[in-house]
Amino acid sequence: MSDYIHDRQALGISVGQVELQSVTFDSLTLESGRVLEPVTIAYEMYGELDADRTNAILILHALSGDSHAAGYYTGETKPGWWETMIGPGKGFDTDRYCVICSNVIGGCKGSSGPSSINPATGKEYGVGFPFITVGDMVRAQKMLVDHLGIPKLLAVAGGSMGGMQAMEWAVEYPEMVASVVSIASAPRHSPMQIAFNEVGREAIMGDPNWNGGDYYQGDAPDAGLAVARMIGHITYLSDEAMQEKFGRRMREHKPTDQGGQESFEVESYLRYQGEVFTRRFDANTYLYITKALDYYDLSAGRGVLVEVFRELPPDMRFLIIAFSSDWLYPPYQSKEIVHALKGNGLDCTYLEMSSSHGHDAFLLENKDLTRVVWHFLETTGRRREAHHA
Amino acid sequence: MSDYIHDRQALGISVGQVELQSVTFDSLTLESGRVLEPVTIAYEMYGELDADRTNAILILHALSGDSHAAGYYTGETKPGWWETMIGPGKGFDTDRYCVICSNVIGGCKGSSGPSSINPATGKEYGVGFPFITVGDMVRAQKMLVDHLGIPKLLAVAGGSMGGMQAMEWAVEYPEMVASVVSIASAPRHSPMQIAFNEVGREAIMGDPNWNGGDYYQGDAPDAGLAVARMIGHITYLSDEAMQEKFGRRMREHKPTDQGGQESFEVESYLRYQGEVFTRRFDANTYLYITKALDYYDLSAGRGVLVEVFRELPPDMRFLIIAFSSDWLYPPYQSKEIVHALKGNGLDCTYLEMSSSHGHDAFLLENKDLTRVVWHFLETTGRRREAHHA
Repeated sequence: MSDYIHDRQALGISVGQVELQSVTFDSLTLESGRVLEPVTIAYEMYGELDADRTNAILILHALSGDSHAAGYYTGETKPGWWETMIGPGKGFDTDRYCVICSNVIGGCKGSSGPSSINPATGKEYGVGFPFITVGDMVRAQKMLVDHLGIPKLLAVAGGSMGGMQAMEWAVEYPEMVASVVSIASAPRHSPMQIAFNEVGREAIMGDPNWNGGDYYQGDAPDAGLAVARMIGHITYLSDEAMQEKFGRRMREHKPTDQGGQESFEVESYLRYQGEVFTRRFDANTYLYITKALDYYDLSAGRGVLVEVFRELPPDMRFLIIAFSSDWLYPPYQSKEIVHALKGNGLDCTYLEMSSSHGHDAFLLENKDLTRVVWHFLETTGRRREAHHA
Repeated sequence: MSDYIHDRQALGISVGQVELQSVTFDSLTLESGRVLEPVTIAYEMYGELDADRTNAILILHALSGDSHAAGYYTGETKPGWWETMIGPGKGFDTDRYCVICSNVIGGCKGSSGPSSINPATGKEYGVGFPFITVGDMVRAQKMLVDHLGIPKLLAVAGGSMGGMQAMEWAVEYPEMVASVVSIASAPRHSPMQIAFNEVGREAIMGDPNWNGGDYYQGDAPDAGLAVARMIGHITYLSDEAMQEKFGRRMREHKPTDQGGQESFEVESYLRYQGEVFTRRFDANTYLYITKALDYYDLSAGRGVLVEVFRELPPDMRFLIIAFSSDWLYPPYQSKEIVHALKGNGLDCTYLEMSSSHGHDAFLLENKDLTRVVWHFLETTGRRREAHHA
């Protein structure tokens, strides 16, 4: 099976051309009580929904992701961010399942966010956009799933922030979730995770171009956003991965007064990554989503984690995956979820995959992830059929 | 012994009032071939030099340190940065030894650096200050030690960048070094260490106030320097230390449009640390010294590490210490030095201390460090006397 899958990836098999869709709802009441009106959700769908609408999988993206999880937009050569995992015969097998991915609210890729026009003022929201939570992201997705007429999702799945949304789905809408795939995620951020996000926010807000969030008619705070992204990138890698990828190799660059005519490859790489990010991402969205991440706590207001899962249906299935070298979302965070699930006798598979890729492993360990996810979904589907037979 | 020492710390025993001294030399030829003229070195001395000048210990500071390692300046209540380790009966026992600490060149606390006046222009050097290396820092210290008439140092000792200088002393001036204490240090920076420094530099240079390094007559790039310091601070701690110190506790602050009326304690702490740092440190010095750190390679131009140590005198003694939770300068980096020393049959004691404090442990694990350093120096002194008897 796994070699077959891996071959399909190597052959460039893909869902092919895809298009961004969107739906606009009159309003969404947020956890804070504030009402966002209207609210637009951008999404993509790959594969066919079956007649009884039981084969839908909702993919949930991470901080810098969007709804473009697989395939190609017309005229573009870069596929969606999880192309390796979503497609015909892949881990999320579009020959079998209808895969849906939407941009989170607060985002900047088609869903309502700080760069959207505030109908009350006729200009971009900026920091006038209401504070949003991971729970709000899931409320918006619920509206989309209802709109699509899907009564129950075969799976909700994501890595990092996507894993948080997946767990939030399970707890908030248990009757709509048959299974959960949470990869490299956490029930809540540690102070170290909060700290790295806060430095990124300080870099953005300290950039004079940020201008209190009101920069859409002028220069954006690119320097600050690039620094935030560079910090992020370091935390997504690992010491070992960086040794393998860059070592202390040098790269020539233009002469400067300091440090001679070369820089380390790792420096060029990070600067490039920072700069590229500013072309595709909105700084205010970075502020809003990192805040949502930091405030997120799966057990907040719900008691200790083992109590949070008490009312979950006994047939709900969980696949929780962490990576050995992920020091940003270390395995102990995933294990906390696993222990609480097992404490309720729930059907939970935990895998700590050996990888040198750090947090980025959830986007890179495709061969192992494909094998595990494909079989997990296949089993979930079979059990569901057995149940309805 | 150790309880005695610990009691002395608790009792506030100190070298007491100290004063900043400085000496100016006509010139210093740097590794790059450029000549710095004149060159001033700021330093402090604690304890008495004995008649034959054999009891001197040179303390070497880290990135954000300076010559003020112990005691108090007149009218100030904050002691030097290694007050816990330097003083009567302490690890570096000023009842026995004469302890010297100088500000590195490139620094901003009295030694020549980018904020010094360039005699050729009559204004601050800024980025016109020549590129400096860890080797250059040591060359400048050698001039100071010669000036003080000290033929051989009983020990060179430091943590982090201080440990790099200590090893550089041993290799460049082996006849002048009886022993080396290197704590939480490395033979060279990993790409991850370089990466964190580079993000800090980008934050500084991306601050419009940096103005190409020419800001001494106007506003300094405080926002950028604060971000750089915040990044540094996170890397000096550990996940465990931050859990213990901050957890997810909140602190009230002024209302903002995003994130409500509170922030996490870890955020307040980091913002405070960033802001305080801008009051005492020069942004250009931060650029120069982090570059010196990143380019430093104990084995560069000298062959593999085991060859670097081949000509060291067989009676030179080494104490190499690393900390279990130090992920910025992980123990494997210290061990690389240890293996190369042992490969030459040199007298090397290696300790991996169990600590939750991360890299900061070199400033915090005082009780254990005191015990180990005190005995190491005492043995070094006894051997030297036996040798000369």
